[in-house]
Amino acid sequence: MRAARYIGGQKIEVAGVEAKPPAAGEVTIRVAYNGICGTDLHIVLGHMDARVAMPAVIGHEMSGVISAVGPDVDTLELEQPITVMPLRWCGKCASCLAGHQHICQHLDFVGIDSPGALQEQWTVPASLVVPLPVGVSLEHAALVEPLAVAVHDVRRSRLVQGETAVVIGGGPIGQLIAIVARAAGAEVILAEPDGDRRAFAAKQGAIVVDPIEGDLAAVVDEHTGGAGADVVFEVAGTRGTALDATRHARTRGRVVFVAIHPEPVPVDLHRIFWRELEVLGARVYEREDFERAIDLIASGTVPADALITRIVPLESTAEAFDALLAASAMKILVDVQGVKA
Amino acid sequence: MRAARYIGGQKIEVAGVEAKPPAAGEVTIRVAYNGICGTDLHIVLGHMDARVAMPAVIGHEMSGVISAVGPDVDTLELEQPITVMPLRWCGKCASCLAGHQHICQHLDFVGIDSPGALQEQWTVPASLVVPLPVGVSLEHAALVEPLAVAVHDVRRSRLVQGETAVVIGGGPIGQLIAIVARAAGAEVILAEPDGDRRAFAAKQGAIVVDPIEGDLAAVVDEHTGGAGADVVFEVAGTRGTALDATRHARTRGRVVFVAIHPEPVPVDLHRIFWRELEVLGARVYEREDFERAIDLIASGTVPADALITRIVPLESTAEAFDALLAASAMKILVDVQGVKA
Repeated sequence: MRAARYIGGQKIEVAGVEAKPPAAGEVTIRVAYNGICGTDLHIVLGHMDARVAMPAVIGHEMSGVISAVGPDVDTLELEQPITVMPLRWCGKCASCLAGHQHICQHLDFVGIDSPGALQEQWTVPASLVVPLPVGVSLEHAALVEPLAVAVHDVRRSRLVQGETAVVIGGGPIGQLIAIVARAAGAEVILAEPDGDRRAFAAKQGAIVVDPIEGDLAAVVDEHTGGAGADVVFEVAGTRGTALDATRHARTRGRVVFVAIHPEPVPVDLHRIFWRELEVLGARVYEREDFERAIDLIASGTVPADALITRIVPLESTAEAFDALLAASAMKILVDVQGVKA
Repeated sequence: MRAARYIGGQKIEVAGVEAKPPAAGEVTIRVAYNGICGTDLHIVLGHMDARVAMPAVIGHEMSGVISAVGPDVDTLELEQPITVMPLRWCGKCASCLAGHQHICQHLDFVGIDSPGALQEQWTVPASLVVPLPVGVSLEHAALVEPLAVAVHDVRRSRLVQGETAVVIGGGPIGQLIAIVARAAGAEVILAEPDGDRRAFAAKQGAIVVDPIEGDLAAVVDEHTGGAGADVVFEVAGTRGTALDATRHARTRGRVVFVAIHPEPVPVDLHRIFWRELEVLGARVYEREDFERAIDLIASGTVPADALITRIVPLESTAEAFDALLAASAMKILVDVQGVKA
């Protein structure tokens, strides 16, 4: 069968690999679609070479159907449409024992730390599989994983109806956070320098600001009577936005740092003190976030079609990575069973 | 009457000033004791010259008795022992309207932004006065204000019985936080390079660590089975401790930045993300913190005598500031009515 593998040197290749039959407690999935994530871009740019074992089959935003079940698996049936929550935890560390398995201290993020979904047949523990309800297409289901990230971020923020949220950064996760926040009944102000991304957010009902040409603080003041936003999501990941994020929150407001800052960056601790802010870390998702993400897609709340910029066959995986690096596409899906025309 | 005033140039003078009779809604207090705060040191070092109107009567950690009441004041009687919660809010800004008057956007911190307690007769709005119960001495009552800071910090942290708290910094506020945290039923690990301060904390039941010679992370690991502390209080205010504070918190732990960092400093946002930490700003106190601080002193939970390094007469105010800058005293009280022997 075919798989797309990161082989180092910023290269992806499609190669024939051997399928792994399901062992006890495992299932094999005929992968339908795989979305490409910002983390996948980091891997292919070589930023995570110390973590991934090359050649690495990556990919963790996926959909598919069960194609084989291992011994002892009686909860899943052949041809069941599914997605996968790609987290394997140890169950024994302090995080797991405290009930926070999703941030296990020895977490195996499947598709990064172990083989991912960019292969025609993918074998995973049955416990990772999340069945899809009738009516959710496999194309749309490939968005469940990134949407679950956004659902988790919004849940961590405790955003409620009638509040105002600022989203700094309008990439895929920023857009999904804006959509989830709007679905929670919040007013959303999204700051993003790219015009296409601003237009996308505006179409979904967000107030949009160009943070370069415009004045985000003035817009926040205008919409909150000078009080500041209830919640700020920092999704851009720059030093400037990390420093600026706390400025836009009201007294006792919440600031969620969603973007990953690998190195310590200056933060305005004085503002956190002065306004008694609450800064929240948010990482991946829990099962309830996955379920909620599926509901949001099933109900049509999330404009799944609009989020999928295009779909390419497995052989075009490398070109899809190049396209994402070159331009402000939202989601490109790889049709894993698809063959280049 | 006499007052100690900051006159600029790092100088304090004791001068004769005119007493202000109480207007409607005001009372005059015969000030008994005034503790010297770290903020007072900053003022006298000239760090806050842009904020204080010189000559400035400073002082905000105080006790005294009512010596005169203005028209319309019927809730306070002459000779009633009291302390003052030195916050005046506007009642109209977004913070006030949201119920967070203590961090009013136009807060008048009495003793910094308006005249303070280092004067024999001090006139303030009656609404700021907090009566003392029978059995709390005026010496001990001068500790209520800094203790209320610690009570507020611990309340913001949501620390509960059985949890472990790390306190980084063993100055007066750090010690009070450790005492309040122990009173809440927590195990406390206090890191402080000064041996006298470590000995003080150890006597109050804290596990103490010299962060220079010792290994705080190892001690935290040892006492938490490798999980990390439930709560970390950063009370030292250095770049190193701000960066280090997040390291000692468990998954989903809380980190309270108590010390004031006037400029942005590097913070480990990756750790906040990785462990889904919660960072909380905490500023001054609310009325309930003042009441709780009085209870803790009245019940003998706080070792008030041990916290008072010495008491000096008003004329020795300048020497008291010098002594605090030179050595690791805990609290020096100024006996405002006292005369130099």
